[in-house]
Amino acid sequence: MKPFKLGILGSGKGSNMAAIADACLSGALPCQIAQVLSDVPDAGILKHASDRGLTGRFIPPGKFRTKLDEEAEAEFIRSLQDAGVDLIVLAGFMRILKGPFITAFPNKVINIHPSLLPSFPGLEAWNQALSYGVKVTGCTVHYVDQGIDSGPIIGQATVPVLDQDTAETLHARIQQAERQLYPDCIRAIATGRVEVTGRRITTKPA
Amino acid sequence: MKPFKLGILGSGKGSNMAAIADACLSGALPCQIAQVLSDVPDAGILKHASDRGLTGRFIPPGKFRTKLDEEAEAEFIRSLQDAGVDLIVLAGFMRILKGPFITAFPNKVINIHPSLLPSFPGLEAWNQALSYGVKVTGCTVHYVDQGIDSGPIIGQATVPVLDQDTAETLHARIQQAERQLYPDCIRAIATGRVEVTGRRITTKPA
Repeated sequence: MKPFKLGILGSGKGSNMAAIADACLSGALPCQIAQVLSDVPDAGILKHASDRGLTGRFIPPGKFRTKLDEEAEAEFIRSLQDAGVDLIVLAGFMRILKGPFITAFPNKVINIHPSLLPSFPGLEAWNQALSYGVKVTGCTVHYVDQGIDSGPIIGQATVPVLDQDTAETLHARIQQAERQLYPDCIRAIATGRVEVTGRRITTKPA
Repeated sequence: MKPFKLGILGSGKGSNMAAIADACLSGALPCQIAQVLSDVPDAGILKHASDRGLTGRFIPPGKFRTKLDEEAEAEFIRSLQDAGVDLIVLAGFMRILKGPFITAFPNKVINIHPSLLPSFPGLEAWNQALSYGVKVTGCTVHYVDQGIDSGPIIGQATVPVLDQDTAETLHARIQQAERQLYPDCIRAIATGRVEVTGRRITTKPA
């Protein structure tokens, strides 16, 4: 059987990428990481890739701060197409991917966000949750569409907010939930169990 | 010891009011229901009150559809003040309470909303949750402020959204969670365990 190929994009430490890679290597996730791309030359995610013998590549993002410039976006697209990826997994990728990228990979780009969307889209969702005073937050895996953290939801996991929580303790607890939820959602997609009907996504049992 | 007196306002069936009343009668909730008020003459909540020998009263809401008129609001305030209530519990009360009411009872009005706020404020939150496609929703008990479902959160409970859920099945599951959460939050307030610091509310263990 042809392996299900993942392309992973990240700008930071790469803890979600490491969890996904380890699940692939152990056989828990029936996927192959075809490519790891970053817009940050010394990102931890590239180190995690090379540590595991995976293809990691830095692509210069160009002149903007929160998005890729046209040339860079085209290079990301070309690189992922050349690698023949079946699914693109955003794992702490800090630039907004707009029209051309989404159009090049329709329904093939997913992201994880550290809140129970639609609550707290955008940056530092754990801090937003603490400031608002919610008692429960969590993380959300969703398809990426043209909006910010607005695409159809594949899976969510809850995380309690404790009275004594700081930004650090809450963020750490959310990240722990992410490292479970993201591989679970990728496995469901890779094994053909995820069905998309408009915004409502159902997952058949394994 | 002076009993902790509740005033309950509702426009509908009154299933939350019935759960609270039964918890008071069984001794699970150390409170006394001093008054049940409704803006709807034949609301189930008034029937639940009379069935239990509690004081229920219909107050004509006046000429508006989504709020009380000035005279009606003054009558609600007067009635609750005369009864000497310590806490006002909104239980399916379908009119927005604005300035004068909130000012008359500072930090003494609470509401329950059928979603994990700040997701899905407003009407039919279970339908909003289904349309958005979230995997988890729930209910929220919060203090009432000048906004719509925007006050500081006292407690939240989660409810899974199932693939086969309809509006009816999801709403029923949320209501079941409400009948547990609302008495729990009222008990915490009545026993002095709730501490408000800005938007962040902590509850000491019982």
